[in-house]
Amino acid sequence: MDKITVIKVGGKIVEEKESLDNLLDRFAAIEGYKILIHGGGRSATRIAEKLGIESRMIDGRRVTDEATLQVVTMVYGGLVNKNIVAGLQARGVNALGLTGADANVLQAHKRPVKEVDWGFVGDIDKADGAMLERLIKQGIIPIMAPLTHDGKGNLLNTNADTIAAETAKGLATYFDVTLTYCFEHPGVMRNPEDSTSVIKLIDSNIYKELLADGTISGGMIPKIDNAFNALKGGVSKVIITKADAIESEQGTHIIL
Amino acid sequence: MDKITVIKVGGKIVEEKESLDNLLDRFAAIEGYKILIHGGGRSATRIAEKLGIESRMIDGRRVTDEATLQVVTMVYGGLVNKNIVAGLQARGVNALGLTGADANVLQAHKRPVKEVDWGFVGDIDKADGAMLERLIKQGIIPIMAPLTHDGKGNLLNTNADTIAAETAKGLATYFDVTLTYCFEHPGVMRNPEDSTSVIKLIDSNIYKELLADGTISGGMIPKIDNAFNALKGGVSKVIITKADAIESEQGTHIIL
Repeated sequence: MDKITVIKVGGKIVEEKESLDNLLDRFAAIEGYKILIHGGGRSATRIAEKLGIESRMIDGRRVTDEATLQVVTMVYGGLVNKNIVAGLQARGVNALGLTGADANVLQAHKRPVKEVDWGFVGDIDKADGAMLERLIKQGIIPIMAPLTHDGKGNLLNTNADTIAAETAKGLATYFDVTLTYCFEHPGVMRNPEDSTSVIKLIDSNIYKELLADGTISGGMIPKIDNAFNALKGGVSKVIITKADAIESEQGTHIIL
Repeated sequence: MDKITVIKVGGKIVEEKESLDNLLDRFAAIEGYKILIHGGGRSATRIAEKLGIESRMIDGRRVTDEATLQVVTMVYGGLVNKNIVAGLQARGVNALGLTGADANVLQAHKRPVKEVDWGFVGDIDKADGAMLERLIKQGIIPIMAPLTHDGKGNLLNTNADTIAAETAKGLATYFDVTLTYCFEHPGVMRNPEDSTSVIKLIDSNIYKELLADGTISGGMIPKIDNAFNALKGGVSKVIITKADAIESEQGTHIIL
């Protein structure tokens, strides 16, 4: 089975020119089949503000009303995605930008309203691994923006970590998949102040312990839940690491 | 040789919900292979204004400085393109949005500075008909935004009529191509006030006469020049018509 590397990179890295250039250099250097999923970043908030659209956040997550959906469609699907694509083309990578609506690669539904109405936010039903595999095997490198659609004409703002996990699962039928989550630290750390305290390996049992003793908390929990979800869906390997280490497989390895 | 229909539609039609819905219904109804190229429209000017970016126009055409390029990348590549894609998916059309940078389908160069510095505006070198043909033959319907790239990492604002002509030429190696330019009138008219005065057929000789007597002037000239350029590049048929007539082949037919 052919190997593929699925890289997820946060919005913060792709919205600053220097860190973006660095990431694109490193992504271009990865050999073999590959795919990049990028987050949105703060530029959507900044642009929404200038357009007089209020950004409403609950627990650090964005509520996506109709005006906000237009902004994230512009910023994530247009500005961020197309600049990555053009930057990779300049590096000889035949990149192709995709939202979930493009070629219907990510089908989702609007998150049902419970305590909170998140607005136009998508929960993914299915990634079309077969379509992605056909594109990839003809030499195309997909670059995925954090947007899906509901098949009824609505785009939906969607968490990029989840898109990465679902896409990796969709590809696992066709490839031996390594999924790498890049963030600002060199891995999951015992002590966030000490970059040498990276935990090299986390399995279900170690995860339970790290949750119980509070080493893992906050935003790291959904990330690791996504990692386990991907592994259960057939992904071979999940790594959490820093953007400048994506070629090395250093960082925290997650296994079942 | 398989037939393909290349439809170019102006920005005005795609930025208003009612005319966009109507266009998408009609585009979805076209049988066989097809591809849509859309313009940008006025929304870029409106959004630029709100962001405090001045739109500089010369002879009705936009000068694209760096800030304006960001806006058109957001609006054309993100907002307009992705809404068309999602709208077509809802109609069962497996649409895929593309700028020229995506899969490197349209290679261009920055327009050289002569009397006017147009800024980040692209003149097209080549449309990759082979790549488009592969996508189309696997059931994908490309939806092209009016943006190209220079292969050095820069996106370029590019005239949609020209993209349509160059794309149609690129496809002519693989398909029997009909290129349809949609605009607000039912065709090229002898009398712009009289919708029954559509000129049914224009060839090179008739074109010279219509230019000489002033029937054809202004923005219609580059459109018809694009039509002749496409025909010389192997396109079988060029039609200029109203958006609600794209299935009928009514309107003005251009032949060599």
